Amino acid sequence: MIKDQSVHEFLGALASKAATPGGGSAAAIMGAMGAALVSMVCNLTLGKKGYEAAEGDMQAVLARAETMRERLADMVRADVEAFDQVMAAYGLPKDSEAQKAARGDAIQLALKAATEVPLDCVRLCAEAVVLSKSVAEKGNKNVISDAGVAVLAAYAGLRSAALNVYINAAAIKDRTFVEERLSELDRILYGMEALTEEVYQLVKNKL
Amino acid sequence: MIKDQSVHEFLGALASKAATPGGGSAAAIMGAMGAALVSMVCNLTLGKKGYEAAEGDMQAVLARAETMRERLADMVRADVEAFDQVMAAYGLPKDSEAQKAARGDAIQLALKAATEVPLDCVRLCAEAVVLSKSVAEKGNKNVISDAGVAVLAAYAGLRSAALNVYINAAAIKDRTFVEERLSELDRILYGMEALTEEVYQLVKNKL
Repeated sequence: MIKDQSVHEFLGALASKAATPGGGSAAAIMGAMGAALVSMVCNLTLGKKGYEAAEGDMQAVLARAETMRERLADMVRADVEAFDQVMAAYGLPKDSEAQKAARGDAIQLALKAATEVPLDCVRLCAEAVVLSKSVAEKGNKNVISDAGVAVLAAYAGLRSAALNVYINAAAIKDRTFVEERLSELDRILYGMEALTEEVYQLVKNKL
Repeated sequence: MIKDQSVHEFLGALASKAATPGGGSAAAIMGAMGAALVSMVCNLTLGKKGYEAAEGDMQAVLARAETMRERLADMVRADVEAFDQVMAAYGLPKDSEAQKAARGDAIQLALKAATEVPLDCVRLCAEAVVLSKSVAEKGNKNVISDAGVAVLAAYAGLRSAALNVYINAAAIKDRTFVEERLSELDRILYGMEALTEEVYQLVKNKL
């Protein structure tokens, strides 16, 4: 499992000529780092003098961020599996008409799964961006730069996952499926750019 | 060493209440993932039919990206060490005037080092952004989304490292030192935003 690899080994695997892990896994790790840094700010705010009023909010944000960190870390592997399924489908025999049809169906099915995984990554990263606003507003000022890194990592994970949605969606024939996913993606992307800059400026003004 | 930790352990350490690893290490990992993905696109372009003309460029970019991946991976640790030095300096005794003066000097020295490390991270991430343009232009189209993730990861690493420059610079008394670093940082940031969007659009148009 990738998440059991050392950071060093993962970076080596990412750089290698192996098709996986690739950008989809890097996107999930960026999202997971964003969620982890939200947790860090919560952990360094809870119980600290001067932040008593934020206690309840920070507890709630922490619980949510920890769930998301686990889900995003698992997505590193899910992305690899989805990509490997697409490759396996392309590798199916295509000697007879029946084989060609079966192969085509398998490719389409695998591409849909390989579009759903990064779209799910987009949704989770968007939630990490939203949570980073809470910690940027109410978190311990001494570690406020970590709230800024959280939002940047989560938003970069989001845009990166979006690229993986686009590349897989381009080869999907079911246009209704594609249009639904792309319009959801556009809605998320639009709101997130402004929110990311808002959180970044909020942090920068506190430094 | 952090880079020998598993990805899962690193994410857990990032989320914990321990002050390190924090945003500075996350910034270095984003930069290292950016460099690694540049390498990946090179590795999947070299020797491929239709990309013979790009062979020389891709070899040169690959060599550079691999050096940068190593340097950025080492910076994960360097950032932790620099931060720990600052904490150690703040922890020095301050009972006598002589101790106060020595502590003040040690803090200033440690803060300067803790500013240089993320600034170096900024410079390396900026180079990763530049390299990602080469692979977005000349790399294998089948993995062009990875060039897009490369630029997003490198730019997020750059902006994240910048936050760590700002937070440490704010407490440094040597204003000449600070102004020199901040003006270099501003110059890099200004050019990189436009370049990142250019590379992102270049990739998106090829999907």
